[in-house]
Amino acid sequence: MEERRNLIMVPGPTNVPDRVMRAMTKPIITHRGPEFRALYGEITENLKYLFQTEGEVFTLTASGTGGVECAISNVVNQGDKIIIPVFGLFSERMKEKILRRGGEAVEIPLEWGTAPTADQIKEVVEKEGNVKAIAIVYNETSTGVTVRDLPEIGRIAEENNILLVVDAVSILGGDMLPVDEWGVDICITGSQKCIACPPGLAMISVSEGAWDLIEKTTKPFYFDLVQTRSFSKRMETPFTPAVPLFYALDEALKMVREEGLENRFRRHKICSEAFYGGIEAQGLTPFPEKKNRSNTVIAFNTPKNIENTEVRRIMREHYKVVIDVGAGKLRKDIFRIGCMGIISEAETLQTIMALENALADVGYPVKIGRGIEVAQQRFHM
Amino acid sequence: MEERRNLIMVPGPTNVPDRVMRAMTKPIITHRGPEFRALYGEITENLKYLFQTEGEVFTLTASGTGGVECAISNVVNQGDKIIIPVFGLFSERMKEKILRRGGEAVEIPLEWGTAPTADQIKEVVEKEGNVKAIAIVYNETSTGVTVRDLPEIGRIAEENNILLVVDAVSILGGDMLPVDEWGVDICITGSQKCIACPPGLAMISVSEGAWDLIEKTTKPFYFDLVQTRSFSKRMETPFTPAVPLFYALDEALKMVREEGLENRFRRHKICSEAFYGGIEAQGLTPFPEKKNRSNTVIAFNTPKNIENTEVRRIMREHYKVVIDVGAGKLRKDIFRIGCMGIISEAETLQTIMALENALADVGYPVKIGRGIEVAQQRFHM
Repeated sequence: MEERRNLIMVPGPTNVPDRVMRAMTKPIITHRGPEFRALYGEITENLKYLFQTEGEVFTLTASGTGGVECAISNVVNQGDKIIIPVFGLFSERMKEKILRRGGEAVEIPLEWGTAPTADQIKEVVEKEGNVKAIAIVYNETSTGVTVRDLPEIGRIAEENNILLVVDAVSILGGDMLPVDEWGVDICITGSQKCIACPPGLAMISVSEGAWDLIEKTTKPFYFDLVQTRSFSKRMETPFTPAVPLFYALDEALKMVREEGLENRFRRHKICSEAFYGGIEAQGLTPFPEKKNRSNTVIAFNTPKNIENTEVRRIMREHYKVVIDVGAGKLRKDIFRIGCMGIISEAETLQTIMALENALADVGYPVKIGRGIEVAQQRFHM
Repeated sequence: MEERRNLIMVPGPTNVPDRVMRAMTKPIITHRGPEFRALYGEITENLKYLFQTEGEVFTLTASGTGGVECAISNVVNQGDKIIIPVFGLFSERMKEKILRRGGEAVEIPLEWGTAPTADQIKEVVEKEGNVKAIAIVYNETSTGVTVRDLPEIGRIAEENNILLVVDAVSILGGDMLPVDEWGVDICITGSQKCIACPPGLAMISVSEGAWDLIEKTTKPFYFDLVQTRSFSKRMETPFTPAVPLFYALDEALKMVREEGLENRFRRHKICSEAFYGGIEAQGLTPFPEKKNRSNTVIAFNTPKNIENTEVRRIMREHYKVVIDVGAGKLRKDIFRIGCMGIISEAETLQTIMALENALADVGYPVKIGRGIEVAQQRFHM
């Protein structure tokens, strides 16, 4: 008998469908030939659908963090003023990238668990003047927070002729983000989150209006979007791409199209509601304010006198479900569950069950089955 | 019947053994758990064998070019003086990376097809003074040239207390490069060349002595070797790694160890000699000077009145063998064949045959079978 696989419920990487896994074993091809150009063309077309953009979309051989590095490197020159709300680990990282480029990071420091509002952004834009870009993490993987004001922030950026750079690594494909409609100039995502592909690729969209500025920055050779664009015109990448991951991405994007974005968003939303319901039914409390709760990363507080790492260990070892604890300064304070990609009733129920059982094992007063019951109601159409 | 695969004989990516391909379909795991740490540990140990180093070796989710970007970013600060011999496309790229970092590139411009000598390097070191590093492409993929003076260049660097950075993307694992013995401080290679793994990973070694300087540079967040090192101590990567490619790399490195480096080098050497012999037997001439000919990239001149792209097309379409033409300014002037990874008698003979037949098809006066005959002699033990 094959060894039983763990169910991966961390906020990325996520479980990958078999047909996407199998795609990786297609024959290695050269990236300077007709087969690769056909593959590249198909991927790019489907990425435009995913990003809902008429702009250009590129696939980089890099982690999501590499994609964000690319975005920042192509936008920020020495001394450029960039607004960056900081409300978690990944927005901290984005700030760090701006600083290392010699940019002036105009930080909006916020409580972790909250999200920046359009009003806060507007105030800083007006006060500062001469802002080149707003850099924002749409979904803070470290806190389970989604910035629900993003459409309005997009309007502010547009009205003030400021570039909007959005880190959507842990959300694109799992929740609303019509890139063109919302006025996002540069949007980054990763392969291993909501589109259920293995990790190793970053995808980045660029609006027509962003190119003027991009052409004026001195960027690292590896992340040069101008060069990437010129190779992309002939359906190639400037450097050797991770061919097996391109095959996998192609297959994963086909699955996104087959399902349709709206259906996919709804599925993520329903499962997240089942998660929040199941968790609250056990007296647990979500970490973020209600209005900013993410549909793709479920974060909730560690109950008093409970060690979250011990609960995680029991879930992994006894119940074969792998979830995550907090990141950075929230390490001990919260749990995090990825509600991404292929997420369905099955994974949601199995995870809630494993969580209930493990909490019971460490002495937390669980009413066994109550979380499942509440989750089930959400799945009752 | 399964469609017949093309034999990939470009200078990377190269053909990948089935067991390495299959490894990619192992279950996706989180990169913050015990399974990944075990995988990371095994890879790192085998990389030290491959690099022949007691220093540290890291695996980056990036193309080989990303690995070189990482090396340059961690070494070069604004105004730093770096010696860079330029004798092909990839050394030009290395220079470009130095310039974009604000470094002062002390270029040694050389004829493409030649290699820098230890004397040339020594002269420039003495003339310039205050040089921080020598950056050198050990194997110029664009010209089929290997820098045979590298051991001596290593001694010059050591004597003058200068860092030696070596781009070994298209050669490590296919020819001699004992990193510690030759005094190489930073060495970069890619997954898709001589170790016969799919593309998408870069591996980089760092000597103990290089860390002082590395700590003093402001590098891009994604390529920060100090951060990479600190995560590496607990057998993790700072960002989500390309897990399936790590599985593949693990398997490919096991195959390197099973064969043994010496045997692997010898196999590459014999096949390259068979290639050069077979080519010269048809009156074709290798592009580089004899003493600098590469064992991993076979470059030879396009015969007069022949279109190399047409020969390549016929080889691909009629004989199912994919080779490459020149890169950059040599595009029309040369052919290039990858002699890498799993290369053996079979691929060598099949490629020479396809080349002979395709040359005959375009009217070049081939003596059919003569190249095979000469190659075969090299394989007669």
